[in-house]
Amino acid sequence: MMNKNITDVKGFTCWGAHSGVKSMRRDLAIIFSERPCVASATYTTNKVVAEPLKLTRKHLKDKKAQVLICNAGNANACTGIQGRKGAEAMAKTAAKLLGLKNEDVIVASTGLIGEPFPTEDIVGGIKENIPKLTNRREAGSFAANAILTTDTFAKEGFSEMMLDGINVTMAGIAKGSGMIHPNMATMLAFIVSDVNIDPDILDETVKECVDDTFNMITVDGDTSTNDMVAVMCNGMADNPVINSKEQASYLIFRSKLRELMLHLAKLIVSDGEGSSKFIEYTVKNARDRNTAKKLVRAISSSVLVKTAMFGRDPNWGRIVCASGNAGVHFNYKKADLFMGDTEHLVKVLDKGKPVEYDRNFVKKLLREAHIRVIMDVNSGNAQMTGYGSDLTTDYVLFNSVYTT
Amino acid sequence: MMNKNITDVKGFTCWGAHSGVKSMRRDLAIIFSERPCVASATYTTNKVVAEPLKLTRKHLKDKKAQVLICNAGNANACTGIQGRKGAEAMAKTAAKLLGLKNEDVIVASTGLIGEPFPTEDIVGGIKENIPKLTNRREAGSFAANAILTTDTFAKEGFSEMMLDGINVTMAGIAKGSGMIHPNMATMLAFIVSDVNIDPDILDETVKECVDDTFNMITVDGDTSTNDMVAVMCNGMADNPVINSKEQASYLIFRSKLRELMLHLAKLIVSDGEGSSKFIEYTVKNARDRNTAKKLVRAISSSVLVKTAMFGRDPNWGRIVCASGNAGVHFNYKKADLFMGDTEHLVKVLDKGKPVEYDRNFVKKLLREAHIRVIMDVNSGNAQMTGYGSDLTTDYVLFNSVYTT
Repeated sequence: MMNKNITDVKGFTCWGAHSGVKSMRRDLAIIFSERPCVASATYTTNKVVAEPLKLTRKHLKDKKAQVLICNAGNANACTGIQGRKGAEAMAKTAAKLLGLKNEDVIVASTGLIGEPFPTEDIVGGIKENIPKLTNRREAGSFAANAILTTDTFAKEGFSEMMLDGINVTMAGIAKGSGMIHPNMATMLAFIVSDVNIDPDILDETVKECVDDTFNMITVDGDTSTNDMVAVMCNGMADNPVINSKEQASYLIFRSKLRELMLHLAKLIVSDGEGSSKFIEYTVKNARDRNTAKKLVRAISSSVLVKTAMFGRDPNWGRIVCASGNAGVHFNYKKADLFMGDTEHLVKVLDKGKPVEYDRNFVKKLLREAHIRVIMDVNSGNAQMTGYGSDLTTDYVLFNSVYTT
Repeated sequence: MMNKNITDVKGFTCWGAHSGVKSMRRDLAIIFSERPCVASATYTTNKVVAEPLKLTRKHLKDKKAQVLICNAGNANACTGIQGRKGAEAMAKTAAKLLGLKNEDVIVASTGLIGEPFPTEDIVGGIKENIPKLTNRREAGSFAANAILTTDTFAKEGFSEMMLDGINVTMAGIAKGSGMIHPNMATMLAFIVSDVNIDPDILDETVKECVDDTFNMITVDGDTSTNDMVAVMCNGMADNPVINSKEQASYLIFRSKLRELMLHLAKLIVSDGEGSSKFIEYTVKNARDRNTAKKLVRAISSSVLVKTAMFGRDPNWGRIVCASGNAGVHFNYKKADLFMGDTEHLVKVLDKGKPVEYDRNFVKKLLREAHIRVIMDVNSGNAQMTGYGSDLTTDYVLFNSVYTT
């Protein structure tokens, strides 16, 4: 029995196949909606932007799309005109076969950067596999696997909700941070839904939810040239259109989208190569959300905090120091710090002063695979949570043995 | 035969001793000038600031000082009122014994943060050791060793220059980034000179030179709560006072100060714990200095670049990606990239396109202890160089086994 996936969302078909870029593995995913979709995407903040992202940004100016093509094995980044033409060929081939405009195609890539783009293989793959698009459930799994690089498992999610008495579904796939083979940790997530929603409202909601979820995870602090989160909604659930943030249906949809993104984001962190722990960092009672967010990011991406986590060391000094480097107001004398696993939390710092606690007990808690670090800065009401991995000797080995 | 050091600068005496905070090692340094000095210091940018820095900042408002006291073993950070009183007691004790005002004392600390400050031991040490102040050369070495924590060697420098026909001397000591034992990598540098210089000119010069030298090194990307660079000049060389940036003597002094700071900064990088390589990163032909600086910092502190360097991997993709994350304008299509050791440089990227080169030869060059990475961004005339270490499995082990 397979779990529900993209193929369970009304009007969507997909496929995942081997086009020849990667040896022996699926490397081409296609997701198609039988009706035009409103669509929104967020892109990498890296100044070096891969060719497929530049093209997709152009195609999504009208906030519409109908098919998504993603190849793995070659990132099509730093590939110049040859790469641009390759991305365009992907869109053109798919559009032609499906009877769409080029602008209705979302293109994404992941893999090695700076290698010539294997346009011929991929265009051939698109031609061969578009006829195979289906809503049979295994196709969802094929697509989820076809976007992976060095990920060790496929990342999928599905959810449904009642909006104004109508059942609406949503599903997504993602890939994360395998960092051995490609030059960087590309993060991709593709989400589809049959919700009926206004394109501007979708756009805002996607940006807000990405900011709270995918933008709150860290594996090594870099963003890649290829990062993209794309959402396509075909309206086929026929719910009364969501066109105001005042609607109950908007609030439900927003919460479900955020939940699905968070689920996929957490799976990405869990699969961080060479990491041994999943760490949840919460900053409570900050002045404002931005302060809380910056503190979480500074702590979760500090190399010294990450090595301490690997070493099961309740090293509050490193957390305070990383917080002081966050570039926002931080008064450690107001800070309480708690550490533990999913069940127990131990206070190790009280208003900036070390607390006497059972060190052996805390070290035992920090052996767990899921760790919590909570800092209460007692300065306001804002709270943010982020997720990260530890930094292990394996990580360094993985990332040093790969040769361009 | 010992090299010249602080004790060779006219009017300065010093001492380094064991006060009892660290077991068996010297942990208290005192540097004294028989005449009042103009003085300037730069401090950590971390929002969490250690007590001695707060006190020194207050004391240096008048740009004058006459003695510097530094203890190792306890950072006196996150120690609250008890720590503030401890720092004040250090200044008061030294001032009283030397017949100075409290405001004439510079106080610095390095070591563990958040531990109660051992005021009694240190005050006792100051009382016991002030009478030992001497200009015998071994005292310079004692002082250089007394400020170390997990550094593996003492960092010293000396230089002299002719200003308006008069011989002027300058000497400095520094400590770097031993990261096993303390919670963080405190960087301290103390420089003394007998130059006769206007306090405002000194202030500006110190800030500019620190920005080009100590601020261009990275070991793990964090700044500590205790970082401080302090410079004291007693004027006893009796050169015509430097009071304008138009003077030839100013230009010579500035260049010599920068050179000494760079020397000490490079020694700090060389002693980065668990690092196996010294890497020199240069960005050439950038739009402006700030752009060049940000690119150098982004590349030199990228975890993925650092692991590639450990693995002897000429991985230009990671360097381009880190540059794209620098937060400044960067067009990889204009970038040339060169890698090599101190003697050979090989072009690996030409205007953003990979160059065919002898990979085995480059990998052999990257085995060297001193590596150069040069990126020409072909967008202007500005150039900056920075220094960093690689990220090794040893680094992770060191930083994970320490337990608070």
